[in-house]
Amino acid sequence: MNVKITGTGCYIPSEVETNEDFLQHKFLNEDGSPFKQNTSIIIKKFQSITGIDERRYAETNQCSSDLAFFAAEKAIKDANINPEELDYIIFAHNFGDVQHGTIQSDILPSLASRVKHKLRIKNPKCVAYDILFGCPGWVEGMIQGYAFIKAGIAKKCLVIGSETLSRVVDKYDRDSMIYSDGAGASIIEVSEDETGIIAHETATFTYDEAYFLYYGKSNNQELCKDTRYIKMYGRKIYEFALTNVPLAMKNCLDKSGVPIDNLKKIFIHQANEKMDEAIVERFYGLYDKKAPEGIMPMSIHDLGNSSVATIPTLFDMVTKGKVENQDIQKGDIVMFASVGAGMNINAIVYKY
Amino acid sequence: MNVKITGTGCYIPSEVETNEDFLQHKFLNEDGSPFKQNTSIIIKKFQSITGIDERRYAETNQCSSDLAFFAAEKAIKDANINPEELDYIIFAHNFGDVQHGTIQSDILPSLASRVKHKLRIKNPKCVAYDILFGCPGWVEGMIQGYAFIKAGIAKKCLVIGSETLSRVVDKYDRDSMIYSDGAGASIIEVSEDETGIIAHETATFTYDEAYFLYYGKSNNQELCKDTRYIKMYGRKIYEFALTNVPLAMKNCLDKSGVPIDNLKKIFIHQANEKMDEAIVERFYGLYDKKAPEGIMPMSIHDLGNSSVATIPTLFDMVTKGKVENQDIQKGDIVMFASVGAGMNINAIVYKY
Repeated sequence: MNVKITGTGCYIPSEVETNEDFLQHKFLNEDGSPFKQNTSIIIKKFQSITGIDERRYAETNQCSSDLAFFAAEKAIKDANINPEELDYIIFAHNFGDVQHGTIQSDILPSLASRVKHKLRIKNPKCVAYDILFGCPGWVEGMIQGYAFIKAGIAKKCLVIGSETLSRVVDKYDRDSMIYSDGAGASIIEVSEDETGIIAHETATFTYDEAYFLYYGKSNNQELCKDTRYIKMYGRKIYEFALTNVPLAMKNCLDKSGVPIDNLKKIFIHQANEKMDEAIVERFYGLYDKKAPEGIMPMSIHDLGNSSVATIPTLFDMVTKGKVENQDIQKGDIVMFASVGAGMNINAIVYKY
Repeated sequence: MNVKITGTGCYIPSEVETNEDFLQHKFLNEDGSPFKQNTSIIIKKFQSITGIDERRYAETNQCSSDLAFFAAEKAIKDANINPEELDYIIFAHNFGDVQHGTIQSDILPSLASRVKHKLRIKNPKCVAYDILFGCPGWVEGMIQGYAFIKAGIAKKCLVIGSETLSRVVDKYDRDSMIYSDGAGASIIEVSEDETGIIAHETATFTYDEAYFLYYGKSNNQELCKDTRYIKMYGRKIYEFALTNVPLAMKNCLDKSGVPIDNLKKIFIHQANEKMDEAIVERFYGLYDKKAPEGIMPMSIHDLGNSSVATIPTLFDMVTKGKVENQDIQKGDIVMFASVGAGMNINAIVYKY
């Protein structure tokens, strides 16, 4: 018995925030001191490293569970299933619903319950829960749904990744330019053919790494010290990711038994273009190979880093022919790979 | 192959908040109007319904993940395992870490990652994630761990329920007297004998019920309208629980094949004494029986409702002989049953 994706959907928020929109921001160092360079140079450097030209923000009347609902509706339609047949709604996020202009995360009830409510599903046997697992949350939700199907306690699962990072950014922190909003969703079901999840791998690094991404105070020391924002030690994350993500990807591929030359696409978390390229280069380097041209579809230029939403969104876009010069064919072997807060890393080898 | 609990632990916070400590509170109706009765009468009525005489609050320098760590350490010691052998740390909560005197939930990184960090576990294959599932979160975490073991992707899991409801209460709301802080934890492992989880059942009701428990504004209309607190429609929850919890418990028991007369104990979520008694009466009523004397150990009188923590705490206390006139013997069949935000209901039939 195998487990495969039978439908996907995504929701790309309508508000476009360009790099130019940050020109008036006053970026500060962590200690509150101003940067020596002017903002336009900071933005140019940011763009050259991350590849991000613009990102999307949810409309002010939307929350993460709203974006998730739109993506879920599309995935259900794409899978052509009756939502009443769903056994699980697994919702990965990191900050819950944060209403525009407020600072509290609203996670009561769970966002999965909110989506189930919006989908008007009546069946109480459809179990709705949230998972907090950093940016790799959607991939981990897929692995959990896979486990439930393997264990015989589910047949059909809706797995959602949705996040509104725009609601938790410190605008005095230049890292705020990375973050974006979005939602992606997928339906997984028992597969009667040979397509589906072939192998999976997960790792959680906390000994030194637990707080590489954290909730911290603004770089503007005049702001309330109790108000927290998404914060990261970018350099540490970069080094951590380059060491550990290629190894996890290799573990996963080796478990699958698929030769590396048969791998057609890598859908990697859209964290930072230079980092993603370096990870994939190192991954191929572990097999003494060069990364093939076009192996790694990217959406980060226009969509930024929307955390849990990047991979399901990108996969949906590529399978629907919405990413230039990128497509996948029936029978292709692809990989999903992610890294983020926790610090968590995971990967799935998948036959499309 | 079966899955059994090999160790348990709990942490009961040291700060005792008695009913008398609420005498100076100015309780208001939802519309901000004062109650006609004086506060001592409100407290007396509250005590007669809920059974709560006192509750526990975490110390001001503690957060939910701290309480969780203390409970986890004890469970690991009780199970006599090397924590490096854990395949999963599953952490159920509802509000994350809320520092005393602040209003933001801190869930970055996940609380499971924080506990793994505090436990000084190095093994990256120990996957740490949080689940948001209302008060039934610990029971659901047990079911998820069970599924991972059944699916062959885990052998040993640490499942934690920890919550600091004292950090999210509206002190102008008389329901604030219900809520308490605490943490309970368990180790589950593959069982080579016939003891362990026999059956489980979960249901999520969202069509009309999603927002029976929610994050809402203070009853004191002079406070900031953007600041949210834990809120509930008590009457609706009561009616919902009395209709649906006994049915879920019956579904679970019937799946297990265990005759109701063989059931020795019911560890029910400590939500409200009168409600818990009525649920258990109705459950037995479905079999045309009366609930046996002493079937339902209670800790609510002294510990209040600490959400996800009540069941693992109570189970730990009974198995360690810390609840008067309550004990369980090797081979006894017991049930765990919970209801809470989502609205979620679940149950496990378990051979001790």
